[in-house]
Amino acid sequence: MHENREATLKRLKRLEGQVRGIARMVEEDRYCVDVLTQIAAVRAALKGVEKLVIDDHASHCIEDALESGNREDQRVKFTELLELLDKARG
Amino acid sequence: MHENREATLKRLKRLEGQVRGIARMVEEDRYCVDVLTQIAAVRAALKGVEKLVIDDHASHCIEDALESGNREDQRVKFTELLELLDKARG
Amino acid sequence: MHENREATLKRLKRLEGQVRGIARMVEEDRYCVDVLTQIAAVRAALKGVEKLVIDDHASHCIEDALESGNREDQRVKFTELLELLDKARG
Amino acid sequence: MHENREATLKRLKRLEGQVRGIARMVEEDRYCVDVLTQIAAVRAALKGVEKLVIDDHASHCIEDALESGNREDQRVKFTELLELLDKARG
Repeated sequence: MHENREATLKRLKRLEGQVRGIARMVEEDRYCVDVLTQIAAVRAALKGVEKLVIDDHASHCIEDALESGNREDQRVKFTELLELLDKARG
Repeated sequence: MHENREATLKRLKRLEGQVRGIARMVEEDRYCVDVLTQIAAVRAALKGVEKLVIDDHASHCIEDALESGNREDQRVKFTELLELLDKARG
Repeated sequence: MHENREATLKRLKRLEGQVRGIARMVEEDRYCVDVLTQIAAVRAALKGVEKLVIDDHASHCIEDALESGNREDQRVKFTELLELLDKARG
Repeated sequence: MHENREATLKRLKRLEGQVRGIARMVEEDRYCVDVLTQIAAVRAALKGVEKLVIDDHASHCIEDALESGNREDQRVKFTELLELLDKARG
């Protein structure tokens, strides 16, 4: 990763804490719906991390493939994006 | 579009019929949950149509950009895919 | 359906027109990404219709089950909601 | 939580490890798309945990509200489910 590297690590550290927090809630027998709310918060946080990685991928890995003029590298980058799109569509 | 053109048109025609079917259900005061089930079916059908268009886009528009070696066209194709990915991530 | 009945019908009519519009775009060989943008618009419209039906379901069918005190009807309503939730989670 | 309590804790523990694994990948400057693949795996794992909590919620909290015949408790349970559904629909 590139310029989002430190921000990504910071968010992942926080996310790890959030997951631990959910485990603590379950241990303390907190109400299911409160646990579900925290799971939704973790999902949102994960999406934020994903966005940072995608942005870095676009402005570096993809940009490099474009500038290189290397057709095979470009094809790999397109294929990967299409697979990510397919997964994201659910 | 290209080789999926006819399949896409056929599915869109069926999808139009499905939407009309939902309207009929609402007019006939059918049970809400049955209406919701049909809406889910339309959403799944829509996803199938989208897949056909994406596949055609990948094997033609993107492939042409790759083969052309035209950097600006390639950049446009990447940017469009990244925007589609962003929307699909919700 | 109840108070959202007319709004739902109106939106479904518009949605049917949007689907027909996409078919026209495909027939006119419009650019794939423009077709995909319209598909995304239909998906958003479908989500709006779904919201109207869910809201009506909540304020009538579910409310009636609550007021009736009929345990079996209530159980059916909970089960249906849980199934809708399961499908919506993808 | 109830019968899924231990399974949920076990999965959350594993999930915490997966998040730490992603952080390690970023520190080791692994390829963005590999990081994205692991993020997708964490999202899938999170969905599995969520399913365990929802199932417990359904078979205990909701079931208790049904059996109690307490209308206010039932209303709360319906409202919570409707909110979860709304969030899940994105």
